[in-house]
Amino acid sequence: MKDLNSIRYPDDIKGMSIDELTVLSEELRAVLLKKLSVCGGHAGPNLGVVEATVALHYVFDAPTDKIVFDVSHQSYIHKMLTGRINAFTDPAHYNDVTGYTCPRESEYDLFEVGHTSTSIAMSIGLAEARNLKKGNENVVAFIGDASLGGGEALEGLAYAPSLKSNLIVILNDNQKSIADNHGALYDHLEILRQSNGQAANNIFKALGYQYIYVGEGNDMKSLVNAFSAAKDADHAVLVHINTMKGEGLPAAEADKERFHYTAPFDLKTGAPRVYDESVDYTDIFADHMLTKIRDNKNVAVLTAGTPGAIGFSPERRDEAGRNFIDTGICEQSAVSIVAGLAKGGCRPVMGVMATFIQRSYDQLSQDLSINDLPGVIVDFAGSVWGISDVTHLGFFDIAMASNIPNLIFLAPANAEEYVAMIDWAIEQTDHPVFIRTPGGPVEHYDGHVNDNFLEYDIVEKGKDGVAIIAAGSFLRLAKEASDILRANGVEMTIINPRILSSLDKNCLDSLRDYRQIITIEDGIVDGGFGQKVAAYMGAYGVRVDVLGLKKEFLDRYDAEKVLVDNGLTPTQIAEIAMDK
Amino acid sequence: MKDLNSIRYPDDIKGMSIDELTVLSEELRAVLLKKLSVCGGHAGPNLGVVEATVALHYVFDAPTDKIVFDVSHQSYIHKMLTGRINAFTDPAHYNDVTGYTCPRESEYDLFEVGHTSTSIAMSIGLAEARNLKKGNENVVAFIGDASLGGGEALEGLAYAPSLKSNLIVILNDNQKSIADNHGALYDHLEILRQSNGQAANNIFKALGYQYIYVGEGNDMKSLVNAFSAAKDADHAVLVHINTMKGEGLPAAEADKERFHYTAPFDLKTGAPRVYDESVDYTDIFADHMLTKIRDNKNVAVLTAGTPGAIGFSPERRDEAGRNFIDTGICEQSAVSIVAGLAKGGCRPVMGVMATFIQRSYDQLSQDLSINDLPGVIVDFAGSVWGISDVTHLGFFDIAMASNIPNLIFLAPANAEEYVAMIDWAIEQTDHPVFIRTPGGPVEHYDGHVNDNFLEYDIVEKGKDGVAIIAAGSFLRLAKEASDILRANGVEMTIINPRILSSLDKNCLDSLRDYRQIITIEDGIVDGGFGQKVAAYMGAYGVRVDVLGLKKEFLDRYDAEKVLVDNGLTPTQIAEIAMDK
Repeated sequence: MKDLNSIRYPDDIKGMSIDELTVLSEELRAVLLKKLSVCGGHAGPNLGVVEATVALHYVFDAPTDKIVFDVSHQSYIHKMLTGRINAFTDPAHYNDVTGYTCPRESEYDLFEVGHTSTSIAMSIGLAEARNLKKGNENVVAFIGDASLGGGEALEGLAYAPSLKSNLIVILNDNQKSIADNHGALYDHLEILRQSNGQAANNIFKALGYQYIYVGEGNDMKSLVNAFSAAKDADHAVLVHINTMKGEGLPAAEADKERFHYTAPFDLKTGAPRVYDESVDYTDIFADHMLTKIRDNKNVAVLTAGTPGAIGFSPERRDEAGRNFIDTGICEQSAVSIVAGLAKGGCRPVMGVMATFIQRSYDQLSQDLSINDLPGVIVDFAGSVWGISDVTHLGFFDIAMASNIPNLIFLAPANAEEYVAMIDWAIEQTDHPVFIRTPGGPVEHYDGHVNDNFLEYDIVEKGKDGVAIIAAGSFLRLAKEASDILRANGVEMTIINPRILSSLDKNCLDSLRDYRQIITIEDGIVDGGFGQKVAAYMGAYGVRVDVLGLKKEFLDRYDAEKVLVDNGLTPTQIAEIAMDK
Repeated sequence: MKDLNSIRYPDDIKGMSIDELTVLSEELRAVLLKKLSVCGGHAGPNLGVVEATVALHYVFDAPTDKIVFDVSHQSYIHKMLTGRINAFTDPAHYNDVTGYTCPRESEYDLFEVGHTSTSIAMSIGLAEARNLKKGNENVVAFIGDASLGGGEALEGLAYAPSLKSNLIVILNDNQKSIADNHGALYDHLEILRQSNGQAANNIFKALGYQYIYVGEGNDMKSLVNAFSAAKDADHAVLVHINTMKGEGLPAAEADKERFHYTAPFDLKTGAPRVYDESVDYTDIFADHMLTKIRDNKNVAVLTAGTPGAIGFSPERRDEAGRNFIDTGICEQSAVSIVAGLAKGGCRPVMGVMATFIQRSYDQLSQDLSINDLPGVIVDFAGSVWGISDVTHLGFFDIAMASNIPNLIFLAPANAEEYVAMIDWAIEQTDHPVFIRTPGGPVEHYDGHVNDNFLEYDIVEKGKDGVAIIAAGSFLRLAKEASDILRANGVEMTIINPRILSSLDKNCLDSLRDYRQIITIEDGIVDGGFGQKVAAYMGAYGVRVDVLGLKKEFLDRYDAEKVLVDNGLTPTQIAEIAMDK
């Protein structure tokens, strides 16, 4: 047996026996567990595919053979076997690698991926490129752990065999999604597992795949045999492997939902190292929605496969009962289902991560907004204080959604405004409403919430001809900037616009004599709210400074540094206002 | 037999015999054919579903039972049976109805729909609403004619049986897409047809549907029996009907692609009434791409099921051979396949309607732009002179795509610039490029095309402190406005920005002393290019007038009237420039 640190690249495992590969897998799992316990991460998914990843690199010849990891949150072991073991064995280097495949790190990583269900289509592209270039490498899509049910995955699945050339889909069936699986497809996978792959009406065979079932998806010999049988096929093959999510960590095997993505934990007990008992916006949302459901049985809450991200813990889901609908990771369908529920007389509210709602642009526009149906979308982590992975950025949502006609885009600045907007959105029946959950820590407001949300709210009236219009959670920055200005003898007008999809022209017209307007928003400036203000006031020649985030893809950034880089600290804002 | 004009609502056909329903179908078909020959429209799709639609309304009880038409381009017969026969029998009223379901017309139309693959998800929403309200009506999704392969349809298909309640999918399998079918799913449908629905490995049975096959999908008795068997089921049923696209018009049965959507034609021969021999931008694109393919075997052209809309006639497809890829109506996969092809070293160019590329927002952002892969997207009908149906509007593309980081969004103003941009986009390997095909008639430019497309092009330098920055096909309007101004003694600077995703700050800085800048773009102003200019110049207090289309959903509009309404005629533009 080689020393783990001598395993640098897949070539280093090619000569091993099955037993040695099995031992190696255990060693890799132990190293992974240690890092996970310190750093957190996608524990369950990666623990479940240790053997499969070792077998993958044992059988296939990357980087010549092309391996595409769907979502790529299951690529930790792949990284360990492709030149990056150090980032797992050495705590000083834990942070050297991202949590997803990353071509900047390694040629073994083909794409930066973090949204689900794209691997088969990308593999079709790689296979078509190979065919045009008359190459003969294998193309492998590694998919599963919730991502198969997404529409794009199904498109690829329903297309690939017609290429009549090599394309291998490895379906990691760990019997779970992020939370529970939902939908008939997953019922079918269960039938396949129960029949050891022998069920009549096999969906993969129906589509023309050579189908290989591996009942013991954590057994090295079974995996190596299956992958070897698929390798170099001149047609499409689907290898269905039945794995244990969280394998090797009893707590993760027992509570798969909690360990899908976990914070640092105690290696022996699995208990979280830090208990965060504070209430955040997901709690506020979920608890409030439970009261709405209690009051009105026509209210329905939807998630597209991420109930935890919107506060709907298993307990809250139980309480909501049939009024909580999990569509699986099918964001497109989820929005169309919202349209159907609204048309059917219900009051649907879909909670969704800002980074994922962009998968439904067309449904937001066509099904909800053209039809002008009163569905409500509440997005989370749409903020510089959201998720900092490049594939999960949330600060594009204003530009994405606020320019769709009919859709009312609201950005509350605090918890009270947030809840009032949800109530208002459910109450009205005129339009679809998109509510952006504030970023950062929960802010409270103890005054009266003016619920005419189509008009701007003047928070403070200043006398010095300078106004700041500060959207959502950036209202706090505006207030701090105002304090600095006041200390310098300048009294600024502070406006909370609340609505970002249209302008309050009466309010803006009242500012025509101002010497300066500053807009500030917790999102990219391009396509955002400030540019609308600038365009409106531009015709009057009023100076408008539009502040917000630069249009760029950031990765694993520090939010406070990004604010500085974009001139968004209170001090910097105050300086702009004093630059007469 | 009743007189056709006495058929107002479904109740009027409930008592009929099968023979009477058959006769009625022939009468409806004759009326439809006459209107189609005069007005054009979705001929093949509707001719194929005459019997199915009559059977649908005979068996089910709309509007209590909910019928959702996918894409809803096959709803002509439905309209004839639900209070709108007059719009088909009386030429004076031909224009009274839209080409899609339209709730403003009738309570029998549930949704305004024009994009594919949403019907099952919408039906899930209606079914869930029914279940929450403890209703017992049937919910029917009528899908097919190309739309089943789209990801959202597959999401719905893979989910619905898990509801364990009534939901009926009628799959109209006419063996065609808009053009040919592509992909393994359609190979499977063929196997089902050939086996009279008896094939092993039935994908629908695999997913848990009660599956009913109707081999004679234009035979009334078979249809009535099948729909009656599905009606009131307490579970999900899929009725697979094998129909003849274009039934009853020999020319349409023979050339299904041409008659999918047709211009007016001679009722006897099927020959078009008007031959348009002029070259349009789709011809320019397709012919140019064929030369690229001839020169470089790594160039691939892609379409997501609409080859005709990008100029790829059957003949041109034959010429392109393997370098032309039709993914079927799977816009999401198509963009990810572009990413895969680019990663695999090919030079992919996807042609797509502007209204449909919005189905790929997430893939444009994640797969292409985060990965910064040199895939090229060329969109068509992204213009006020595009398609005027509310579900097919093209003028949201600037707002949708130009705010995505890394993606270079180009708007050529004429054919020569267009071709040069395509060449440039294929040549460079730094970024994804989005090229917006000009709207309106083909314009030519006989000068040298400056191909530094990241900088603005100064078309004319004026001396009077007024500049107009006119994007894409609106450059023509700017030139005409400039002529008016010149006649009034004002010399305007005219700038063609070409790039809409970033600003040429050097050029804009040179305008800081101007008294006025006008921007004009062939798209909505919100989220568009002019607002970026206004925001940049706003900090200098320069007056900027941002012209373009209002953010709104228009339906079957007159383009020239819309230009007037938005102040976009040359005269109106000139007036703004003279409003000192």
